[in-house]
Amino acid sequence: MTKANPGNFFEDFSLGQKIAHATPRTVTEGDVSLYIALTGSRFAMQSADSFAIDTGFPAAPVDDFLVFNMVFGKSVPDISLNAIANLGYAECRFLVPVFPGDTLCASSEVIGLRQLSNGKAGVVYVRTAGVNQTGDTVLEFVRWVMVPKRNMDAPAPETQIPDLPERVAPDQLAQGLPPIDAKAYDVALSGAPHLWGDFEPGEKIDHVDGMTIEEAEHQSATRLYQNTAKVHFNAHAQKDSRFGRRLVYGGHVISLARALSFNGLANAFHIAALNSGTHAAPCFAGDTVYAWSEILEASEIPGRTDAGALRIRTLATKDLPCADFPRKTAEDGYAEGVLLELDYWAVLPRV
Amino acid sequence: MTKANPGNFFEDFSLGQKIAHATPRTVTEGDVSLYIALTGSRFAMQSADSFAIDTGFPAAPVDDFLVFNMVFGKSVPDISLNAIANLGYAECRFLVPVFPGDTLCASSEVIGLRQLSNGKAGVVYVRTAGVNQTGDTVLEFVRWVMVPKRNMDAPAPETQIPDLPERVAPDQLAQGLPPIDAKAYDVALSGAPHLWGDFEPGEKIDHVDGMTIEEAEHQSATRLYQNTAKVHFNAHAQKDSRFGRRLVYGGHVISLARALSFNGLANAFHIAALNSGTHAAPCFAGDTVYAWSEILEASEIPGRTDAGALRIRTLATKDLPCADFPRKTAEDGYAEGVLLELDYWAVLPRV
Amino acid sequence: MTKANPGNFFEDFSLGQKIAHATPRTVTEGDVSLYIALTGSRFAMQSADSFAIDTGFPAAPVDDFLVFNMVFGKSVPDISLNAIANLGYAECRFLVPVFPGDTLCASSEVIGLRQLSNGKAGVVYVRTAGVNQTGDTVLEFVRWVMVPKRNMDAPAPETQIPDLPERVAPDQLAQGLPPIDAKAYDVALSGAPHLWGDFEPGEKIDHVDGMTIEEAEHQSATRLYQNTAKVHFNAHAQKDSRFGRRLVYGGHVISLARALSFNGLANAFHIAALNSGTHAAPCFAGDTVYAWSEILEASEIPGRTDAGALRIRTLATKDLPCADFPRKTAEDGYAEGVLLELDYWAVLPRV
Repeated sequence: MTKANPGNFFEDFSLGQKIAHATPRTVTEGDVSLYIALTGSRFAMQSADSFAIDTGFPAAPVDDFLVFNMVFGKSVPDISLNAIANLGYAECRFLVPVFPGDTLCASSEVIGLRQLSNGKAGVVYVRTAGVNQTGDTVLEFVRWVMVPKRNMDAPAPETQIPDLPERVAPDQLAQGLPPIDAKAYDVALSGAPHLWGDFEPGEKIDHVDGMTIEEAEHQSATRLYQNTAKVHFNAHAQKDSRFGRRLVYGGHVISLARALSFNGLANAFHIAALNSGTHAAPCFAGDTVYAWSEILEASEIPGRTDAGALRIRTLATKDLPCADFPRKTAEDGYAEGVLLELDYWAVLPRV
Repeated sequence: MTKANPGNFFEDFSLGQKIAHATPRTVTEGDVSLYIALTGSRFAMQSADSFAIDTGFPAAPVDDFLVFNMVFGKSVPDISLNAIANLGYAECRFLVPVFPGDTLCASSEVIGLRQLSNGKAGVVYVRTAGVNQTGDTVLEFVRWVMVPKRNMDAPAPETQIPDLPERVAPDQLAQGLPPIDAKAYDVALSGAPHLWGDFEPGEKIDHVDGMTIEEAEHQSATRLYQNTAKVHFNAHAQKDSRFGRRLVYGGHVISLARALSFNGLANAFHIAALNSGTHAAPCFAGDTVYAWSEILEASEIPGRTDAGALRIRTLATKDLPCADFPRKTAEDGYAEGVLLELDYWAVLPRV
Repeated sequence: MTKANPGNFFEDFSLGQKIAHATPRTVTEGDVSLYIALTGSRFAMQSADSFAIDTGFPAAPVDDFLVFNMVFGKSVPDISLNAIANLGYAECRFLVPVFPGDTLCASSEVIGLRQLSNGKAGVVYVRTAGVNQTGDTVLEFVRWVMVPKRNMDAPAPETQIPDLPERVAPDQLAQGLPPIDAKAYDVALSGAPHLWGDFEPGEKIDHVDGMTIEEAEHQSATRLYQNTAKVHFNAHAQKDSRFGRRLVYGGHVISLARALSFNGLANAFHIAALNSGTHAAPCFAGDTVYAWSEILEASEIPGRTDAGALRIRTLATKDLPCADFPRKTAEDGYAEGVLLELDYWAVLPRV
């Protein structure tokens, strides 16, 4: 009986099961620097203590997707080490800002199970939380993954599919965000004049720039998150896989899309919630990632006059500039070259 | 009308125009580690707090070219996003040491304009400054770039070419450098016995070592500086460019040349000024960078007996060892393989 | 006479000679982040301040092999810049934990010399120490390297081969390790339930995972350690070498093997000593590193009931999964694909 972790299979999960994930992580200024070096992110709030302090934070907060990727990474050895596919995200809320020096622990609860009709695998729904050293939940999200069975004869669990909202409601957004001093928010330093009130639903923005991914980059990012999924790191084993090569971690594509979106959404300084996300196609080293966004909704945040929320759909593509806003085909499949569709709430200053 | 930044074209610049650049940046220990990891720099003063404190600093100062690259990077979206060529640098002075925790803001002033005779582009001269959180200018430099016109019919501005000195005068050097305790300066730890008085004008030094650049490395360095120039990151778009591939940011070549120069100039612990610089040829991933230096002048620094200045010309080459000190051809062009010529003042302890 | 460092040749070393190595180094949180990003290490003690504090440390200690590689790197310009081969390690002891903010200086003493019978080179044995800013020796190790002679006519020194133990004795282990509160040691967070008492001599563990190395990764790691050995960085010069390409620094392979060993040895939170190590074959970019371990001994640590020591032999391979525990051939040579054999003492909590 080996002491190495074989990961969980479908029959290892049970409804209501709670799993504490290994390897708590102190997030540091080193992680912040690496995140900038690996993504090119330029949001002023996460880049400069002085800018964040002037606006109302005690220091520059850690990028929301760096937090997301770290918490997600912790969950991999228990939830998705053997996963066949990451099927979706929902109800992801960023609840409390994280600062360098905070230590994050992650845990998950199984909230849904559904065995496939072929009896060989099933879908596991988990709600994963990241908690800081003072016990605050900083991030919460639901994801579901397809996991094979180890023993094909294991009985199917009762099917339970959680009821997930299409989007996080505006009154659930930005509850941990400190009051923003919008007068002190300097749009010369933030990089663009367009605040919350300057965006209209239906508006589309081509983020223009492209970023080519190298193997060393996505591997370093994914290791930084202590994500252990084998498909990202093992070229030798991947030679015999469906794609014949290493896959880029989807969270790295999310981070790149977010970093590229600065060019057009520079004042969307905080991701408050991720409503849903789809990895439409695999991404490989050598691919150049482009992105474009559409404003889906503009919503006030109940109780706040300092900031408002935009519901944004950001698409990332590979080797495909986005001047024509590629998304779906006539048959409603994703267009060739689309990598990612992300539906999220971002917060912008409001004057 | 898109909200993405299209960058400025020649007719967007006017003499005396002042531009505050986006994304202030808190420089951290994470940046310092990454700079060492990406360049291999070994100067003791920037590597060890204890060494710096013994010598007279409050802590290890941030590498001068890390500061330069960060301030430069901020200026790119406004000054050189559309640039056809970076033509030169002058009057670059490192005025105040930067320490981890400092936040840098950058701004530029247009100090010269000259439309090309073909009417399609022009040369823009800017003086760029980096300012820390207490308002001190830590770095100032002039650079000039060739920028295309958006509208060929836009009228030419009055030609104004700034008067730039061939070199920064010695009495302008090291004004922000704390007094150095040259007795406490440990040449075993610094890596070489040769102090200011040991160098003679005309002396040439082959720095011997070579460093091969990978795509992931120059991309990570350039993103760390939040430099957005597309030519460094977008392999997909660069396929159709003149070179067919990504270009290495010239500032990364400068950093590598400086790091290589440790082997021969280990006690040149501070760059006080950059007199001029030329990128003689493009650099690509896969190139191996070598360097050599010639001492051009040795100057006292008025008012100081603790340290002296050497004016140094450092050449960087690609795939060309420097035992024969390659520089110019008989026709006064740069020799094949020369990447960079840098003329700068470095400060060394004086006993 | 050049000021660049030509490195030492065999006849430059003398018995008892002491060498202070250049470039002291303040270890920072940036280095810790980079180490995780480059190796994927997941040991909870080095990852989270809270976990380390609960267990008895003042903060998360720096990974032992990060400390080893930094101290080793300092010794390269003086000891092994011209080395033909790194022949072995012995008596390596990790004596005092290192924390971010500590500054490390390295020095070596020549403890043995043996000229080869062909008169062209010799073996140099050195004992290298890393000392922190308060004067504590944090790490000590012996290594021996084959170094060519500059002048073949230089007389041979008297042969002196140091007496080196096969293994560090258990009463010399973990002297600087603070008392561990094994009750507070959370095995859900550490990643595995198996503590010191759960391992038996003879037990073999396949660490399962594989990690492919990229040029940018091993170069960045090796530069982070300010290791200057040319074979790792200079593709241009290596083209004409025996292997025709850059070699991965052996210390990076050690770090990867250690990081991979988490999967099976998650509670081996401290490396107390390295008894011996052999680099069985060269490693190149593109190789996928796998690892397996065998428990050689389980020993109490005299005077301690909180923690025990396991003597472990870890093998790293390239492009060779380790389910069959590859090590030697019938002729007692290393099997094809074996990169590294490391014999060390690790410390685990004991309940």
